[in-house]
Amino acid sequence: MITPQDETAILKAVDAVFDREVEFLAELTSHASTRGKEQSAQDFMAAELSARGYGVDRWRIDVADIAHLPGFSPVIGDYEDAVNVVGTRGTSGQGRSLILNGHVDVVPEGPLDMWETPPYAPRIADGWMYGRGAGDMKAGLASNLFALDALRHLGLAPAGHVFLQSVVEEECTGNGALACLARGYRADAALIPEPFSEQLVTAQVGVIWFQVHLKGIPVHVAYAGSGSNAIEAAIPLIAALHEMEHRWNAAERRHGDYAGHNHALNLNIGKIEGGDWTSSVPAWCVFDVRMGLFPGQDIGEARREIEAVLHDAARSHPFLKENAPAIVYHGFHAEGYALSQDRSEGAAQAISALESAHRTVTGGPLDKIAITATTDARFFGLYADTPALVYGPRAEAIHGFNERVELESVRRVTQATALFIARWCGLEKI
Amino acid sequence: MITPQDETAILKAVDAVFDREVEFLAELTSHASTRGKEQSAQDFMAAELSARGYGVDRWRIDVADIAHLPGFSPVIGDYEDAVNVVGTRGTSGQGRSLILNGHVDVVPEGPLDMWETPPYAPRIADGWMYGRGAGDMKAGLASNLFALDALRHLGLAPAGHVFLQSVVEEECTGNGALACLARGYRADAALIPEPFSEQLVTAQVGVIWFQVHLKGIPVHVAYAGSGSNAIEAAIPLIAALHEMEHRWNAAERRHGDYAGHNHALNLNIGKIEGGDWTSSVPAWCVFDVRMGLFPGQDIGEARREIEAVLHDAARSHPFLKENAPAIVYHGFHAEGYALSQDRSEGAAQAISALESAHRTVTGGPLDKIAITATTDARFFGLYADTPALVYGPRAEAIHGFNERVELESVRRVTQATALFIARWCGLEKI
Repeated sequence: MITPQDETAILKAVDAVFDREVEFLAELTSHASTRGKEQSAQDFMAAELSARGYGVDRWRIDVADIAHLPGFSPVIGDYEDAVNVVGTRGTSGQGRSLILNGHVDVVPEGPLDMWETPPYAPRIADGWMYGRGAGDMKAGLASNLFALDALRHLGLAPAGHVFLQSVVEEECTGNGALACLARGYRADAALIPEPFSEQLVTAQVGVIWFQVHLKGIPVHVAYAGSGSNAIEAAIPLIAALHEMEHRWNAAERRHGDYAGHNHALNLNIGKIEGGDWTSSVPAWCVFDVRMGLFPGQDIGEARREIEAVLHDAARSHPFLKENAPAIVYHGFHAEGYALSQDRSEGAAQAISALESAHRTVTGGPLDKIAITATTDARFFGLYADTPALVYGPRAEAIHGFNERVELESVRRVTQATALFIARWCGLEKI
Repeated sequence: MITPQDETAILKAVDAVFDREVEFLAELTSHASTRGKEQSAQDFMAAELSARGYGVDRWRIDVADIAHLPGFSPVIGDYEDAVNVVGTRGTSGQGRSLILNGHVDVVPEGPLDMWETPPYAPRIADGWMYGRGAGDMKAGLASNLFALDALRHLGLAPAGHVFLQSVVEEECTGNGALACLARGYRADAALIPEPFSEQLVTAQVGVIWFQVHLKGIPVHVAYAGSGSNAIEAAIPLIAALHEMEHRWNAAERRHGDYAGHNHALNLNIGKIEGGDWTSSVPAWCVFDVRMGLFPGQDIGEARREIEAVLHDAARSHPFLKENAPAIVYHGFHAEGYALSQDRSEGAAQAISALESAHRTVTGGPLDKIAITATTDARFFGLYADTPALVYGPRAEAIHGFNERVELESVRRVTQATALFIARWCGLEKI
């Protein structure tokens, strides 16, 4: 039983450790942990967990351990450089267990000249911390850790097992979270503080990534004929994909949680590269596509439809009919997930505990949101029967330039997380 | 006076040195002399010239020496790695002088898996030599050198000054040939054996290169709205450029030498690159364009029209109107050139000498061609009052995969070149 006095003490304890939390967040953000380069950030996470007395499980992901599991996303190359970190500590085990999950990988910073200040030199201005990954989602990792620090500051610890997960690969496959499942980590609920402005995510879309490879016969531009340019051949394919995107978003195809959303499924041409020489008709072009799916939409069917759309468009094009596009899957094969459809008692209780915690901190109700992105929540919800609550701070320009997270929002989320832990796991003296 | 007996002796002398010419061509082709990496090929050229007793002038191009000259093309970066080689030898100087010019730079080979055999491991099959640059235009450099070798085989040398030029930068700016002019090399005619199937080039188009840089504000794809994608914003700009290309090729705008050519001026989207991450709306995209010009078309006016076309297209586009494209000139600012318009006595005599040489070798008339590419001929013709004859062997797939040159054609061009030298410069005993 958590009393109002306990709650007040927990809120103050978060305040007491918050300066250190901000320092921690700045240091974590200073690690340029783009995919494949997360090691130093994970070293830092492991050291911080170890210094607090957590047992640290630090392992390299082995594709062979996860490739057969539902939710696996195909990858090109191996995982030599993909390291997960999980911290645990002793407990009576009398309370409910909890996974506090966050991802340490960040998306590329893009051209540096488009940042006002360097992306990995975090700075604070007007109550916001700026830096690549500050919002998505190193603030969440900080919140998970310092919510527990705040409890410890009071001489308390969760009465159930708590697993602090710092995973890689969230931004491209989710195979980092999947590897935690494969390693046996299970709990009664999961909390993932992705930066959705202190709202509870009740549904998330699925995401599929694919590359379209075009190759043809190049010639000197002096002999360029129509339709022989592999770069320009991408244009009708992109148009055909947008027509598919339009169909998939039609009202009659929408998942219930997205009924009022005119365009939940976004198709993104995220990268393109082609040609070697300005005066040579380009013989090759590759573009990378991200497409959203509704919860319940089958990945295999989506793949078949994407392939049919591309091949149909190719058949009527002078270049493409002779040079069929090759479709390569590299990255997300992520199904959608709707917490709203989890009718279990555990889900209801977890949501209730978070609603209560949120109200205590903010004085208001917990808003719900169906998001147009994916998160690692799907692994817990779809493949481990674990209600997964996505609830994190307010951030802006995630994946953009001058990404930033609001520090007072980080404080509130840390407080709500500490209260949620108290309600969900119960507390015991250290 | 060259007698029929002399001619027969010269043809046989080319035959006598032809095996060595093929070996030389294979070795030169084995140097992967893409732009910036011509040094080893130029070392080889210089060594071969030196071994034959030529004086060798080998110098690094200095932009300061040429940037103020007509015909200069803008470049990004310096010329630390740009080396020209010119070979000369003693002569009585009683005959007419001649520049034998060729470029040693080759265009990139592109994806290696699209070559049947490695591009820099030249091989001979069915009378063709395969390899990047074998046709464009190392066979021409070989022909220039071995035409003189054949004369020497007979104990003869040109009676006028002959300058054997091996230049860089032909494929992107022509600044290598321009640097030869700036260094003072002049002659009564120039011959450039570019691979146009033993035809005489009587007109060549101009070429302008430009890059279009698009930048904008990226967001997570979850928040992608229409018109915010820098890669897709390139599409309407490419369409507008093709409309311009169509206008420029209109019958009423054609240069006389291209009156019957429906599409002499090709616009090529030769390279594209954009975006950093599949799930981030791309904030940047750069594409590289090559556009042809007719002889007489002003480069400055062409630039202004290109800029107007791009800016007009941008104004009506949701992304581009907020993120105007930046146009960067990097590479060709090449004017067109028509030997057919050179009414000088020297031009008439040079063409006549080549016609005669060609007829002796092939038994047929010298075909004339207006080409849809540029060559270094423009520097001699436009900026040094020197008739420049482009006449070289038959090649296929230049700038493409499995580029090849026909060896019997190389032999005939070498023979015609030796005869042309004899008629143009006269001969004297060594």
